[in-house]
Amino acid sequence: MSKITELLNWRYATKKYDSSKTVPAEKLERILEAVRLTATSSGLQPFELLVVTNPQIREKIKAVSANQSQVTDCSHLLVFAAWDDITPGRVNMMFDLTNTVRANVNQGWEDYRQILLGIVAERGQEANYQAAARQAYIGLGSALIAAAFEEVDATPMEGFDPSAVDDILGLGARHLRSVVLLPLGYRAAESDWLVNLKKVRRSRENFVTEIN
Amino acid sequence: MSKITELLNWRYATKKYDSSKTVPAEKLERILEAVRLTATSSGLQPFELLVVTNPQIREKIKAVSANQSQVTDCSHLLVFAAWDDITPGRVNMMFDLTNTVRANVNQGWEDYRQILLGIVAERGQEANYQAAARQAYIGLGSALIAAAFEEVDATPMEGFDPSAVDDILGLGARHLRSVVLLPLGYRAAESDWLVNLKKVRRSRENFVTEIN
Repeated sequence: MSKITELLNWRYATKKYDSSKTVPAEKLERILEAVRLTATSSGLQPFELLVVTNPQIREKIKAVSANQSQVTDCSHLLVFAAWDDITPGRVNMMFDLTNTVRANVNQGWEDYRQILLGIVAERGQEANYQAAARQAYIGLGSALIAAAFEEVDATPMEGFDPSAVDDILGLGARHLRSVVLLPLGYRAAESDWLVNLKKVRRSRENFVTEIN
Repeated sequence: MSKITELLNWRYATKKYDSSKTVPAEKLERILEAVRLTATSSGLQPFELLVVTNPQIREKIKAVSANQSQVTDCSHLLVFAAWDDITPGRVNMMFDLTNTVRANVNQGWEDYRQILLGIVAERGQEANYQAAARQAYIGLGSALIAAAFEEVDATPMEGFDPSAVDDILGLGARHLRSVVLLPLGYRAAESDWLVNLKKVRRSRENFVTEIN
């Protein structure tokens, strides 16, 4: 077993956190950094991360998340929030940043900027949001492995009311939409019904098809 | 820097593969296994992986992928294909598998099965497909880290005609839709324009918001 599959076998969707334990800052930073470094389509990074520790705000989020206790018992609540649209301003921001970082203007890259601006204009707001949301999930994949590497438990959660969370966090004004929550912390193993149950995945033959 | 951020810094979207090099079977298997073990919403794993090595089929895919050479020059072409709908049959398949693996029927789990069947019925085909597609991207996040761990290069690609790829691979008959391609192989560094360019990511302060 490779290290990565070992980490993926170790992790599970923690159902009960020990609210007395806090993820150390340096571990949290490495998890956030893994998300920040994640690949995205055309390098746009069309999402942001919010790290919620405020107890009152977490109570409000819990109330619109089927009262799932992980929201308030965890150490840090990550909120993945996708761009509500991929606007010309946002595309240009990332292309300009690329030119700055690489201290270079490349004609091929500038041509691609124009192509991409055309694609997002034609695709429209809702499809752009859906495309942005998918990219956030690549980051979620990184976060789950990075958290496991730090021996930090995590719970990917879609069971919440996104527009209510957007209102609580003021995401609309920032042209963001919440797509997935990720509580981070430490399992309370003795009161977690899932911790000792076997991981369930389809077999390789029911998941992978080879076309040789 | 943690091992995971090191891997994410090492990787880049390879533009030119050395077509003479093949990823060893055991490395490929560990990458596929990382995707198979990836967390998904409600544990549904609403996607599959295709591993395409057949040269004629790869030529056809290349032709509908803006002739990007990675499709044919890579060692193995992964195709992430999401369920085109989350049907009762598919939901029941995963819930039944869970009961089999855990040798247990749990009333809470059975209640959740009924809730989820209600959710997917109400949501409808297209929204179910979009939800399934997002899950595939969690797997993509795992694949990118797992490939880097194996020192295997990879190129996430959305620049293709999904319905044409579906036709080439006969995915419609299997009620799947292609969402992202991932060539795997070894970089031809001397002819890859991207290999030596700096990675571009927004700064932490432009990506992370803390709500304390």
